[in-house]
Amino acid sequence: MHTPTRGRPDPLVTGALDRWDGQGLTGEPWPFMALCSISRLHQLLKKALEAELKRFGINRTGYFLLTTLALSTGGSARLSALSRLMMVHQTTVTLTIDQLEAEGLVIRRPHAHDRRTTLVEITERGRECVKRANEALTHAETVPLDRLGGLYQELFAALQPVREAVGDTAL
Amino acid sequence: MHTPTRGRPDPLVTGALDRWDGQGLTGEPWPFMALCSISRLHQLLKKALEAELKRFGINRTGYFLLTTLALSTGGSARLSALSRLMMVHQTTVTLTIDQLEAEGLVIRRPHAHDRRTTLVEITERGRECVKRANEALTHAETVPLDRLGGLYQELFAALQPVREAVGDTAL
Repeated sequence: MHTPTRGRPDPLVTGALDRWDGQGLTGEPWPFMALCSISRLHQLLKKALEAELKRFGINRTGYFLLTTLALSTGGSARLSALSRLMMVHQTTVTLTIDQLEAEGLVIRRPHAHDRRTTLVEITERGRECVKRANEALTHAETVPLDRLGGLYQELFAALQPVREAVGDTAL
Repeated sequence: MHTPTRGRPDPLVTGALDRWDGQGLTGEPWPFMALCSISRLHQLLKKALEAELKRFGINRTGYFLLTTLALSTGGSARLSALSRLMMVHQTTVTLTIDQLEAEGLVIRRPHAHDRRTTLVEITERGRECVKRANEALTHAETVPLDRLGGLYQELFAALQPVREAVGDTAL
């Protein structure tokens, strides 16, 4: 009933697909398989990324945040915008900013036109850190990130239709 | 320098790609873009799945666990195998099993040949729950899961090369 889309057989994958009807399950197997896969891949990549970033003294949230700031005009953004963009609670962003500020990678300063708003700005040291981290990820030499080199662009492109379908267009 | 792979332009995506060199970033933009995308998508789907499963009285881990058990021969598995398969700490699996057992969806029983090992077995009521949950996901009517119907199989297939590259072949 369910035909695998890929040529190379994976015994476990084929197993789950083949067992679906035989084990009396109903509905399509694809929601389960896709949601389980993305959950596993997310966890694997999260762990690998944290390990890779350790030598730069930043964690995953810090890396996303610093790179986002480095890409922003003027190298700064509101805390609320960073929280939204990273889909992370403002408390987590605040904690991460505290850590990055202690390392001299960002500074906080009041918004020029709205003194109640705090801007987070990347420092020169922060920019250096972003460069080293992104170069390290581009040329990763440690398992398993060293296997992903050519796959990142493909992965990004593959996720786009799904992200667009659920209304996520950021990045 | 970096060419988007897709025809349809996404202003934000194009923005990040275009800004990479101009803002002085080095290395490829793809690791950041892919890792950020999968993190955002994971969080969106996690939240949507939890919301969808609420009416079945189970959470995401419970759903993955029950479906895995329903697919297993005899409907049972060792706690350690479930923990490994779901990439979740054994403590989390134990807590989830406690909840599912309280709802009558699984039972614990000693392994026939190794009394020190505990098996988790899905009940008839658990199987009914799995069926209803997977049917609901297959024909989801709530935002944003209703947009994913035709995309799950595509998403699963798209993740496979990356999962294989990092050595994840389960499912």
